[in-house]
Parts: sequence; structure tokens; C-alpha cells
Amino acid sequence: MSEVPNRIQIVGTGNIAFHVASGLAKQQTVHAIRINARSETHHDLFMSISPKIEFCINEKPDFTYPFTIIAVSDDAIGKVAEAWSGYPHLIVHTAGSVPIDVLKKAGINNFGALYPLQTFSINRKINWKKIPIFINSNNEENLNNIYSVARLLSPNIIPITDSNRLALHIGAVIANNFTNHLFAIADKWLVSNDLKFEYLLPLIRETVDKLEEMSPLDAQTGPAKRNDRRVINKHMGQLEGDQDLKELYLRLTESIFKFHHERGY
Amino acid sequence: MSEVPNRIQIVGTGNIAFHVASGLAKQQTVHAIRINARSETHHDLFMSISPKIEFCINEKPDFTYPFTIIAVSDDAIGKVAEAWSGYPHLIVHTAGSVPIDVLKKAGINNFGALYPLQTFSINRKINWKKIPIFINSNNEENLNNIYSVARLLSPNIIPITDSNRLALHIGAVIANNFTNHLFAIADKWLVSNDLKFEYLLPLIRETVDKLEEMSPLDAQTGPAKRNDRRVINKHMGQLEGDQDLKELYLRLTESIFKFHHERGY
Repeated sequence: MSEVPNRIQIVGTGNIAFHVASGLAKQQTVHAIRINARSETHHDLFMSISPKIEFCINEKPDFTYPFTIIAVSDDAIGKVAEAWSGYPHLIVHTAGSVPIDVLKKAGINNFGALYPLQTFSINRKINWKKIPIFINSNNEENLNNIYSVARLLSPNIIPITDSNRLALHIGAVIANNFTNHLFAIADKWLVSNDLKFEYLLPLIRETVDKLEEMSPLDAQTGPAKRNDRRVINKHMGQLEGDQDLKELYLRLTESIFKFHHERGY
Repeated sequence: MSEVPNRIQIVGTGNIAFHVASGLAKQQTVHAIRINARSETHHDLFMSISPKIEFCINEKPDFTYPFTIIAVSDDAIGKVAEAWSGYPHLIVHTAGSVPIDVLKKAGINNFGALYPLQTFSINRKINWKKIPIFINSNNEENLNNIYSVARLLSPNIIPITDSNRLALHIGAVIANNFTNHLFAIADKWLVSNDLKFEYLLPLIRETVDKLEEMSPLDAQTGPAKRNDRRVINKHMGQLEGDQDLKELYLRLTESIFKFHHERGY
């Protein structure tokens, strides 16, 4: 069994850094969390988490901390990691689309990834227990140690390869970013027709609730699936004034049709 | 004040007919619900709702019922309504994209629409109280009567024009059908990469929960909004084997970018 570190260092002060710090601070076995910040931004917010938090601005990395989490933007990970070159303990990053080798290239020997699959906002509470965390590392012993830390946050820890983590991130972009964009498009469309987006909320909630019971393929409804050209044409006629929306409507309608007739025919 | 009819006739045995019958049967003031069916399909299911239900197969329309709801597919409404030509009471249809004049053309004098904005499945329970119902009619007295019936199902009744109901239906297609299709695409993608769709469920739920607090425009995250070309290109590279998905990824990424830079620049 691996030992759980009682002092953890986090690099970064963004959404993920904040929620990781908040989640870890709740654990009795964690005595100290050092935040490595570039500026005073979010200082008070982080300090409000717990007395366990130490907020260090532009200080040198502390090599005595037995576990370090780099929670910065994808592009910055490699550069930030260089300051940890020769660090004797474990360093992980939290990105979906970055291979762990970026840490090796920065001169680190024990490295990995700890990728929580969630969309984080600094001003929204997170239920860590429901968030799956995907981990990988350069060897099995390190993987076990990353597992122990991830386990402090969630019961749902899944080992994954770099390439599958990337595939998972693509799935997350489709299911979260693209989906949310459709909500934004619907919002704009309704408001331009003197209707309210909130009318759609019970419908949206039911669409998501269904996913607990059936696959999205089985849950599909609507004119595109039925290939109901009369309704589709009526809708297309209404969208004349908005070429972008009209084209997106057509593309997604074709995509649904294709998806369902691949099965049937 | 309008009188609430205590006997209601429903034409059709689909998802909406079933849930409307179930919702109305719960009301003490409703004593009898006559279902006009074309075949025995769903007979037992409807009869299991309540002893108030009468299931009539291929019978002539009963002109003594003081309120009739046509809950059949869009294309069938006009044809079905012809059998009610000269009906002295109120008939409504439940479609999103059909003008109420289709009932006038069928020879009916008192007509309207009662459009519940929801996706109905026969095997899922519905909380009617949370579903907004949109109504319109050929005159104000009839509108009041439709309001009284709709009010038996939900506290959230909104008068709407034909053209706005059509606009609303387009919004529903975007937010429900298109969104669900993205979930189906993500599902297929994950499974083809030996990953499980259920990993995404907490993320999807959070994306929807956010909508209760902020607009989807404000909730948007991800590489497309940030115009993070490195991540986008990495994702595009992974999608090489699936041209349809790659193209959809690019289209939606461009659409998000455009949406957010219309505001900012």
C-alpha cells in the first residue's frame, strides 16, 4: 500500500486549482496545501478555503513537498514544469489533451496525470464524489501514489492511457462545450423571437434525465430522426434570416438522419 | 370564468395522448376521458391509467363531449380533424409546428392549440407541474376554456401565436434533439475508443445545472471559446478516421468562436 502524502503543492490559481485545493483541504490526513501563484489574484478566495492553505506568490518551487499538482493551462504546463526539473517526488498535471511526457521533457523523473472529468467554475460548488478522475503515470508505483491522492477527492478513479485521455477529452468537448453552445444558440434564437430560454429548461432537464435510463441513440426523437420533411422544411423557412443557424440546422438534421438510417437500412 | 369540462375526448394513442390522459385522469373534476383509437395497440396501457378511461376503437367521434384534444402526428391532424367537421365544442391539437387554421379548414368552428413543451416517452413518468404549456385559439372565450383545461395539467400556461409556437418548436429541436444527438455522437466516439459514455454523465449534468444560474453564453468553456488552436488541432488529428465527426467538430468549433467573438471584437 502506498502512503498518502499529508502535504500537497498545487501550481496555479485557476478553476481546477481552486476546486482541487478545496477538495483536498477537507481531508483530515492532508495537513498543508501550498498554492504556487504568479500574482495576488484569488489570494483571498484561496485563503478562505481553510487554514491549511499557504498562498505563495512567485516563490521558488518547494522540493520538500512530497506531491505536486500542476493545474495550469495546457500550453503553460511544459514551461511551468521546467522550474521543477530534478524534483525528486511525484508531479502530475490535470489536463485532458496533454501527454505526460511533457513533464519528462522538463527534466522530471516521477510524473503522471490526474484528470478530473468536469467543467469547473470558481463560483460553483462541486460534488467531488461524483466526478470520475482519470490517472496515468510513468510507472506502477507512481500510479499507485497518484491513485492514493485522487482517492482523497473521489471514489471513482480510472487508469487511462495518454491517447485515451485525449479521446475522452474530445468526448467531453462534444458533450459539454458543443451541447452548451447549442443551448446558447437556442437562447439567442428564442430571445430574437420574444421568447424566453427558461421555457426550455424542463425539456433540457428531461433530455439529460433520460440518459440515466437509456442510451442517447434510443432516446433520440424529433423531425430529423423521423425524416419528417414537412416539419424540417417549415423550420428551415423560419430560419431564412439567419444563414449560420440555418446551415447548422441542416447539418445536424442530416447527421441525425444518417446516424439513424445507418442502423435501420 | 370559464367552466372546466368534466368529460374530455382524446384522439390518438401515442406518447402525448398517454401523458395527457394520465395527467387529466388525476383531476377530481374530470370524470370521463374517452380515447379515440385506431387499433387495440396500447389498449391495456391506457386502461391501466384509471377507471375514468374509455378506450374506443374506430368509433365515430362523439359530438357530446365538450372538449376534444387531437394528439396525433403533425401530418395526420388535418385529415383526422375532418371527421369532427361541424363539432360544436372546442377542439385543440398538441403540435409545435402546425397552425391552428388546419382545424378551421377541416370545418371546425371552435379550435386552438395546447402545446406542452416536453419530450414524452410512454415508459417514463412526467412531472406535468413543471411543463410549460403554450396555448392559442380563434377567439378569447375559447382561449379561456383552453386555459382552464391546460391548467388541469400544469400551473405554467403561456398564450402564444402560431408563428411563435413554431419558433419555440425550433428552439426545442435545437436544445433537445440536436443536443441529444451530440450525446449520441459522443457515446459512439467513446465506445469506439474503449471508453464508456457514463463517464460523461456528471459533466453533462453539471452543464445543465449551470443553466439555472447563468446564461449558456456565460457558461461556455472549452478550446473553441478560448480559440486554443493547439488543443483543437490535436483533437482534429484524432478524428482523422471519422470524416463526419471531424467536419461536425470543425463546424461547431467555428460556430462557438464566431459566437463569442461577435461579442468581444
